[in-house]
Amino acid sequence: MEEGIVVLYDVKDRIATVTLNRPEQMNAITPGIRSQLAETMARAANDPQVRVIILTGAGRAFSAGIDMNYLKSRSAGAARQAPKADDPNFLPSIASGLGPDLEDQFTEIQRFSYMMRIGKPVIAAINGPVVGISCVLALSADIRFASDKMIFSTAMSQRGLIAEHAIQWLMTRQMGPARTLDLLLSSRRVSGEEAKYLGLVNDVFPHESFMSEVRKYASVLAQNVSPRSMAVIKAQVWKSMFQSYKEALAVSDHEVGLSFDSPDFKEGIAHFVEKRAANFPDLKPKA
Amino acid sequence: MEEGIVVLYDVKDRIATVTLNRPEQMNAITPGIRSQLAETMARAANDPQVRVIILTGAGRAFSAGIDMNYLKSRSAGAARQAPKADDPNFLPSIASGLGPDLEDQFTEIQRFSYMMRIGKPVIAAINGPVVGISCVLALSADIRFASDKMIFSTAMSQRGLIAEHAIQWLMTRQMGPARTLDLLLSSRRVSGEEAKYLGLVNDVFPHESFMSEVRKYASVLAQNVSPRSMAVIKAQVWKSMFQSYKEALAVSDHEVGLSFDSPDFKEGIAHFVEKRAANFPDLKPKA
Amino acid sequence: MEEGIVVLYDVKDRIATVTLNRPEQMNAITPGIRSQLAETMARAANDPQVRVIILTGAGRAFSAGIDMNYLKSRSAGAARQAPKADDPNFLPSIASGLGPDLEDQFTEIQRFSYMMRIGKPVIAAINGPVVGISCVLALSADIRFASDKMIFSTAMSQRGLIAEHAIQWLMTRQMGPARTLDLLLSSRRVSGEEAKYLGLVNDVFPHESFMSEVRKYASVLAQNVSPRSMAVIKAQVWKSMFQSYKEALAVSDHEVGLSFDSPDFKEGIAHFVEKRAANFPDLKPKA
Repeated sequence: MEEGIVVLYDVKDRIATVTLNRPEQMNAITPGIRSQLAETMARAANDPQVRVIILTGAGRAFSAGIDMNYLKSRSAGAARQAPKADDPNFLPSIASGLGPDLEDQFTEIQRFSYMMRIGKPVIAAINGPVVGISCVLALSADIRFASDKMIFSTAMSQRGLIAEHAIQWLMTRQMGPARTLDLLLSSRRVSGEEAKYLGLVNDVFPHESFMSEVRKYASVLAQNVSPRSMAVIKAQVWKSMFQSYKEALAVSDHEVGLSFDSPDFKEGIAHFVEKRAANFPDLKPKA
Repeated sequence: MEEGIVVLYDVKDRIATVTLNRPEQMNAITPGIRSQLAETMARAANDPQVRVIILTGAGRAFSAGIDMNYLKSRSAGAARQAPKADDPNFLPSIASGLGPDLEDQFTEIQRFSYMMRIGKPVIAAINGPVVGISCVLALSADIRFASDKMIFSTAMSQRGLIAEHAIQWLMTRQMGPARTLDLLLSSRRVSGEEAKYLGLVNDVFPHESFMSEVRKYASVLAQNVSPRSMAVIKAQVWKSMFQSYKEALAVSDHEVGLSFDSPDFKEGIAHFVEKRAANFPDLKPKA
Repeated sequence: MEEGIVVLYDVKDRIATVTLNRPEQMNAITPGIRSQLAETMARAANDPQVRVIILTGAGRAFSAGIDMNYLKSRSAGAARQAPKADDPNFLPSIASGLGPDLEDQFTEIQRFSYMMRIGKPVIAAINGPVVGISCVLALSADIRFASDKMIFSTAMSQRGLIAEHAIQWLMTRQMGPARTLDLLLSSRRVSGEEAKYLGLVNDVFPHESFMSEVRKYASVLAQNVSPRSMAVIKAQVWKSMFQSYKEALAVSDHEVGLSFDSPDFKEGIAHFVEKRAANFPDLKPKA
């Protein structure tokens, strides 16, 4: 099935916007979406002009889950959709080379957890409905903002399915087991306001000003703070989910030593002492 | 001590209601409560008519902790209450046979964690005061709703006791260490509204309509979603508390393969495509 | 550099108040602050008159991070500030001898995690701005209260630094990865009200009545509950962060057996039965 361009890429003011672009199908996930999303994220990861990545959906939905054409064929007994064999060069291609090694965690291309490995913040701008596997996509971002027209529903228990793609892990780490059980067992629809309350999204904004609010937040990351710091901190936070206090402390101590030698630390002190706006260097392209 | 019937069982609309029934003693926990509760939960677990279990208390309290007659005799130097030796047939008798194996976690009969092993959601409907070990009981449910007349108090530090029955684990996983320390150190009384804020309960309802609100929620689980999905998802969520992302993902992948062959998946797609109410099969009785 | 007395100590009504006292420098962290804080905390830990410890700052700030004189000299290439070699007698000197062994976790003197080992609750009373490493200090307390004039900012990404001193671990355990990433990546300023919402502080009080509200809370711990219970429970909660349910349960069972033999348990039952105020014994000084 030829899909054409189903993921858009745009860069402005150091912010990349990655847009799922099947608006007529509510940006439902297809093999084309999956592979173009991975390619586009790799592009953003390696673009020295880009400091922050916003992931959103064209039209009224963020993404309505797996494309039902695939599910129906499965239900009818057809062969399962074979995920394209994962490209062994993909993870190295997006690695920032900064921060602790995430080892064998978050290595999934088909299930989006490679996004945790990108050395730039990924912000999910959930502009409307987000359903099923698209909840996994949103939960694989670092930070989530919801429009007040967002509706979140895992839908898996309504389909006779189970907690797919480690969503049980992704949700319990943000909101604990009871809130996770509520949402996964019931598949009930959650609004942006409630999602904020539950710890599922970081904040909710009115739909009219949604993308400008998200961009305002992203601009802080793009302008005020060190890209190098963000790459290291992001890896530290995700790594810490598997670490004891003592192990996390050892990472901090190793990384702070490296940061003292960086131009970012010099600039971080200089702009503070000189009471001027920060002017941090871009991340260096990989050799 | 003969206790009579201290735990009631009722089934209606696929919802079992299990009621602690010592209202004059505020449903304080006795050996009889413990053993009848286990028996009644096993009955609900194995009743094919039952898809959801509500646990509540008769009268004005949910449960006021250990019966003080037992505590006083301990304090006076009497022999400690010997818990009935745990029946090796009990855990197999409640197992759903679905979802990942919880191994040696949540195996306690005396301390209620067997409830995590039941393949049906257990909803604690906390209708009034919940104190001491009864907080452990409530925290062993999957989902908690509070009446606005609920009062939660661990009370252990007021009794010269410690964090009993792994309540420190149960609480930190729902609400983090600082909120847990606040409540466990102070034994202060928490209202339903605050309990919701703290992540201790999922929601709070007015006392007048409390049980009807809880039943409304339970009906969604009883009518709209797959019993098989709920059994698997519940085990996945509790199991994920001990897993890395990668381990949780392996469980998801194993379980989704099994679910594709289930009649629940077929019905899950069919009712969606046909835009009609779901009609999922009951869980099969164990062989 | 001679620093004079930069940490104050005061005891009243069983509550020790430990005050960072460099108000002209917004209580910025220096070697003197670090060592005097450790000494003062050890004093409070061993003072039988003391049941609760409040940590706060003199003047308008809680603590404004590392003293910039140290950072500037580092940035200019000077030798890194050598932390005083950690005294091997320090951790034994603050240990309560009660509750589970924290083993090799929370052993840091320079980075404040020794406070988790003190057998008395440490309450951070965050009276104003808290920045950088001082956020680590606040997060190493058991309970945090914020004045409505508090401003919290990690600042590390603005300085070209990384997640220092295991702050990524301390924050994710209180508030999950997404909220942690938001604050650590952006270094944005968080108010007391928002900090409460995020789970970063337990509660927020108006600045005018701030210390009296904090003392009111501390009085509950000082008067109503068992010092022995608090010592054990605190260690249980922090230990549980590294434990499975089953491991935490084993600690509970071991500790409850010990508590049954304590005078605190006897008094805990007696004051309840006699409906009078509790009169728990002080912690015994160590041999």
